[in-house]
Amino acid sequence: MAKSTMPLMTLLTDFGERDGYVAAMKGVILQRCPNCRIVDVTHSISPGDVMTGAYILAQAAPYFPHQTVHVVVVDPGVGTSRRILAARFSGQSFVFPDNGVISMIAERMLLEEIATVSNVRATGGASSTTFHGRDIFAPAAARILDGAAVRSLGPKPGTYKLLDIPRPALVDDGIRGHIIYVDNFGNLISNIPEKLIRDNLGRSADITVSCGDHEIGAPVETYGRVEINRPLSLINSMGLLEIAVNQGSARQLLGGRVGDAVRLSKKRAAGEKENQP
Amino acid sequence: MAKSTMPLMTLLTDFGERDGYVAAMKGVILQRCPNCRIVDVTHSISPGDVMTGAYILAQAAPYFPHQTVHVVVVDPGVGTSRRILAARFSGQSFVFPDNGVISMIAERMLLEEIATVSNVRATGGASSTTFHGRDIFAPAAARILDGAAVRSLGPKPGTYKLLDIPRPALVDDGIRGHIIYVDNFGNLISNIPEKLIRDNLGRSADITVSCGDHEIGAPVETYGRVEINRPLSLINSMGLLEIAVNQGSARQLLGGRVGDAVRLSKKRAAGEKENQP
Amino acid sequence: MAKSTMPLMTLLTDFGERDGYVAAMKGVILQRCPNCRIVDVTHSISPGDVMTGAYILAQAAPYFPHQTVHVVVVDPGVGTSRRILAARFSGQSFVFPDNGVISMIAERMLLEEIATVSNVRATGGASSTTFHGRDIFAPAAARILDGAAVRSLGPKPGTYKLLDIPRPALVDDGIRGHIIYVDNFGNLISNIPEKLIRDNLGRSADITVSCGDHEIGAPVETYGRVEINRPLSLINSMGLLEIAVNQGSARQLLGGRVGDAVRLSKKRAAGEKENQP
Repeated sequence: MAKSTMPLMTLLTDFGERDGYVAAMKGVILQRCPNCRIVDVTHSISPGDVMTGAYILAQAAPYFPHQTVHVVVVDPGVGTSRRILAARFSGQSFVFPDNGVISMIAERMLLEEIATVSNVRATGGASSTTFHGRDIFAPAAARILDGAAVRSLGPKPGTYKLLDIPRPALVDDGIRGHIIYVDNFGNLISNIPEKLIRDNLGRSADITVSCGDHEIGAPVETYGRVEINRPLSLINSMGLLEIAVNQGSARQLLGGRVGDAVRLSKKRAAGEKENQP
Repeated sequence: MAKSTMPLMTLLTDFGERDGYVAAMKGVILQRCPNCRIVDVTHSISPGDVMTGAYILAQAAPYFPHQTVHVVVVDPGVGTSRRILAARFSGQSFVFPDNGVISMIAERMLLEEIATVSNVRATGGASSTTFHGRDIFAPAAARILDGAAVRSLGPKPGTYKLLDIPRPALVDDGIRGHIIYVDNFGNLISNIPEKLIRDNLGRSADITVSCGDHEIGAPVETYGRVEINRPLSLINSMGLLEIAVNQGSARQLLGGRVGDAVRLSKKRAAGEKENQP
Repeated sequence: MAKSTMPLMTLLTDFGERDGYVAAMKGVILQRCPNCRIVDVTHSISPGDVMTGAYILAQAAPYFPHQTVHVVVVDPGVGTSRRILAARFSGQSFVFPDNGVISMIAERMLLEEIATVSNVRATGGASSTTFHGRDIFAPAAARILDGAAVRSLGPKPGTYKLLDIPRPALVDDGIRGHIIYVDNFGNLISNIPEKLIRDNLGRSADITVSCGDHEIGAPVETYGRVEINRPLSLINSMGLLEIAVNQGSARQLLGGRVGDAVRLSKKRAAGEKENQP
């Protein structure tokens, strides 16, 4: 595999698809790092929806090459005292507001370095108070793309914020979790990882799944394993339990939404009594 | 004209603008082909709308340079037995599910090579059963971008699927066709090519056009040839008969939609009788 | 800072996110300028909304490097006698329809060269009458990206069109302006520049701001200076007075829209009488 001499960055914001804010950030980065390539992750999340930003970042970032710089501007606290952080996780770098948007990366990748961004020459000489994406995040990213170490951007913070993401719980007869994300296809994605299921409930075929008031079959291998327009559960491409509808939308068919309870339990073997020790 | 040393690919999916799926695919491709440039065609078509995918691909792909690799993931059958194909048409390559999404390219470009993708090392070593875009399409595209021949990806399939796209028909007094696409401007695009009109009905000025219950004038040269907010017909930039409204939306003004009938007939010359031999 | 050998262009259209039109233009450009990098500004403005195009272009273009080529296709007059222009402002180039979409750039950057595009070899040898973006704008941009001077594209026009953008006015007790843009966050952006305020009303703290029927406080430094969900005014990242809501939408909370009046006046000092000379 050839190595590229062009630094690579990604951009994830809540700026929307219409305004010129994203392009202004790209202009600033390309002024400072002319060979940089920029990949958009998304700009279509709801303004200030930090949890969705955290999820989408974790869908995408782990698949990027070593040395990629990911810039995340989902930043409802712009202009307040919230800090801007830069961190290195598993060989890739991230520039992000200290509001928890890094949470799902911090669960999946290894923290190697972290800094509070402070030694950065702001765009235009003086930072605006409303557009830190253009005036601080972009030049900070350009510094890293240009080869600077994360630690050169400022002092190490004592701690950094993580979201209070609901954890799945082991309950009497199985596992209880929640829907944490609904994707473009209407798939309902839970916070229940495959490993937790395997370690506690064993083989898929012995498991029952419910979501809200709906009984869903045991996890299957892929969407096409049930009839068209029928609900199903499976382990998705991020290793999480997902409720879906074959060639349809579980959001529409089941009325599912973020926060809904998801329960897994072991089927009783034939003749097995309840409350047996 | 200088030749670029950076391979070029495009990406057309139904993944939407918000999720991290598209970026995950790009990360995988950039890991395997670090100098690759990626152009988005669209990610905004309705989930599983293969016909729209086929149309948009044909709007864009023919304009790309020799050697471009086009990756199409409109794939409602992911995880079923549907095959993933790679093909070379007129010097460009395509990776796509075997569900007919290649149909309008197959009509317009010359098939040179085709293979069932099977010899591809999946992302992460094992393919997911739900995200073949990331785990199979992306590494297959990276192989071609890296110089591999289409035929090296797997065996030649006996046949491949084409959509049953409605054909325009010659009828007693002219041509009968259908609306096959409605674009962002509300333009109604038919399946009636310019050549069919010229060969059978002759000069534009002698033709009447109707769409649904609406009488539209003979094809004009461009939108501005009628008054603002008036309907018109013309030959569009893909060489197809289009019903439009000058500075307005034919979808809104005429209520047009995919499937609506479009009829062309020759105007009778003054004094000409009906059914004259 | 390293210089890139890859020419850079941006693309701003009203083509929407779904159709293949944008990608077709990119294909044409990459055929003619294989090393070119293309940054999207937006494709999501309403069809034919020239004023919004003008505003977004001015949000983004000034931040791009010297030599960038900006292509703007918000062109409701395609195929009519409206001209296509190329111009150089402050070291960057622009290709645009002569409908006023360049207005806010012309206010902010220095015109160095301008030409009516006429000496361009159209895509496919003959230009379509409906898709000048692909057939004229794209090849014109490729010429400039390839090193051609703006003046080589055609003769200098006698004049070029500017939009009749409403100007803020000095009135008896202060300044009167209008909302000219509402962004993705629901921020209401006025046509009142910071300098006009400073020169005529002095220090922020002494100013009252109203928008429609709503009294807003004096301009503050940033969103977080008021409570969550409270309205505020500030000088935004383009140097214009903006009405916003901390972590909310001024469009929703205040019902603001383009065209609404915005008034600034000086607070009377305690004991100061009205109409005092």
